[in-house]
Amino acid sequence: MKTLRDIGEDRLIDIITAIPPRDPSPEAGPGDDCAVIDPGPAHDSLRLLKTDALVSGIHFTPEANPRSVGWKAIARVVSDFAAMGGRPEHFLITLALPPETRVSWVESLYQGMADCMVAFNAVLSGGETTAVPAGSAAVISVAATGCVHRKHLVLRSSGKPGHALLVTGTLGGSIHGKHLAFTPRVKEAQWLVNHYKPTAMMDLSDGLAKDLSRLAKASGCGAVIDRPAIPITPGCTPEQALCDGEDFELLIAIAPEHVPDLLDDWDSAFPTLPLTVIGSLVGPGSGESLTGGWEHWM
Amino acid sequence: MKTLRDIGEDRLIDIITAIPPRDPSPEAGPGDDCAVIDPGPAHDSLRLLKTDALVSGIHFTPEANPRSVGWKAIARVVSDFAAMGGRPEHFLITLALPPETRVSWVESLYQGMADCMVAFNAVLSGGETTAVPAGSAAVISVAATGCVHRKHLVLRSSGKPGHALLVTGTLGGSIHGKHLAFTPRVKEAQWLVNHYKPTAMMDLSDGLAKDLSRLAKASGCGAVIDRPAIPITPGCTPEQALCDGEDFELLIAIAPEHVPDLLDDWDSAFPTLPLTVIGSLVGPGSGESLTGGWEHWM
Repeated sequence: MKTLRDIGEDRLIDIITAIPPRDPSPEAGPGDDCAVIDPGPAHDSLRLLKTDALVSGIHFTPEANPRSVGWKAIARVVSDFAAMGGRPEHFLITLALPPETRVSWVESLYQGMADCMVAFNAVLSGGETTAVPAGSAAVISVAATGCVHRKHLVLRSSGKPGHALLVTGTLGGSIHGKHLAFTPRVKEAQWLVNHYKPTAMMDLSDGLAKDLSRLAKASGCGAVIDRPAIPITPGCTPEQALCDGEDFELLIAIAPEHVPDLLDDWDSAFPTLPLTVIGSLVGPGSGESLTGGWEHWM
Repeated sequence: MKTLRDIGEDRLIDIITAIPPRDPSPEAGPGDDCAVIDPGPAHDSLRLLKTDALVSGIHFTPEANPRSVGWKAIARVVSDFAAMGGRPEHFLITLALPPETRVSWVESLYQGMADCMVAFNAVLSGGETTAVPAGSAAVISVAATGCVHRKHLVLRSSGKPGHALLVTGTLGGSIHGKHLAFTPRVKEAQWLVNHYKPTAMMDLSDGLAKDLSRLAKASGCGAVIDRPAIPITPGCTPEQALCDGEDFELLIAIAPEHVPDLLDDWDSAFPTLPLTVIGSLVGPGSGESLTGGWEHWM
């Protein structure tokens, strides 16, 4: 009798996404950062939907500052909207909490969520609270709607062989603090879709090794990485940069002829945030096999 | 140091809904069955947003048929859309599961969710999977978008003193099976908003005692109940009908002059489902105080 520990997250997602009824919209493929709803050709904007969850003992420790946990809960979702070229609008928060949870902890959690919503011009529109049995892990489930201009939508499935791969920032070591205090790359993603629209984009949540494999697979490509080029957070190893997860930086694919101008203009627009070429997409089956990265049930 | 066990759900909601940024839309008051988003006067339809969660050991037992649990997870949310006069469209499912969860259990759960989406013309548009620590309760968090024609929207906050209170079906004893197999009252609610639009409506999830108190409070009213009139599920006590919860029937307020015609026409439209007058809304402060009903952390 197989369990989730035996098969892991990606195989589970393959299984459950094979069960109908799926959204018939061709844009809304499973596995992208957000679901995409097309309200019809009369509308310039597409609607984006996203859910995400934080679990005590998995995504944060009971000792973590609850205001930071709240920021992270919202920022993770904001990062997904950014990765599609969009922005968040309405949030709904579901709290599943054990009865021993302190009221002051919940208040600080909400304050942190509010901080992040204010920072990214989103609002809290609803939610739900429920108990979990005493001793069970707290689960903070976040759902949100957003929007993206039709011409700015970037999927992770539209990369092409030969396109350059770039990442923002530095990778690895998020566990030392950044994972609770990161800034979603909304501003940078908006600049990108307006100036050098990527052919594919996603945010790095489970580590470059795992997430790049996902982008390449979704695009029907392989990938090669120039390992010495990977921008590593000071104090981290190359292995940590590939596998730690929770970087929440952007992974970008773009036609190689645009790269020199992109790098020049990026340096002017965002002088303190690196943008680094780390490799390229290649034809299917001809790339390297990346292993490692965050695995949920193992 | 106060905990959730000390204050209960309604007080927690009061605390967290006081933290900004709230949606500025006047329709989107906290505490209604769904959040309401007005896309602007050019649109006939309003958007509805809803989240809900099922927790193992709270809303279902580990031995429950997972396909029934899946049906329930979706049907609870469909019931909330019905209670606003609307219908569901797009679902997102977040699963927070311990590593020992059987894959076949998750497949059956999804099949049950799919059964309910198909039955109510909704689709699965996305979701998220994450681990909880081994031994922690499984949490199934459901988010959904829906719509309601602007003229059909019914809030729980618009009841008026003197208006009759009615409920569909019979109350109590849901734990003996109905809570896993109920039919959300979409068809009945659609008929109501088209023929005898209620002034206020909600679905009964936490028991008539608690939910009627919420509708009355939201409407700035009190309420009186004609206890012998409450339609009790065979085999249940009056106390169970008031307090068991998970009835998922509609609680309706409507101007008293419409009641005789409503009851006649209802019998023709839904001959097998009772619709029963159980009391009326009264001025604030002059009703009875109802106690009991499902409490999440106590």
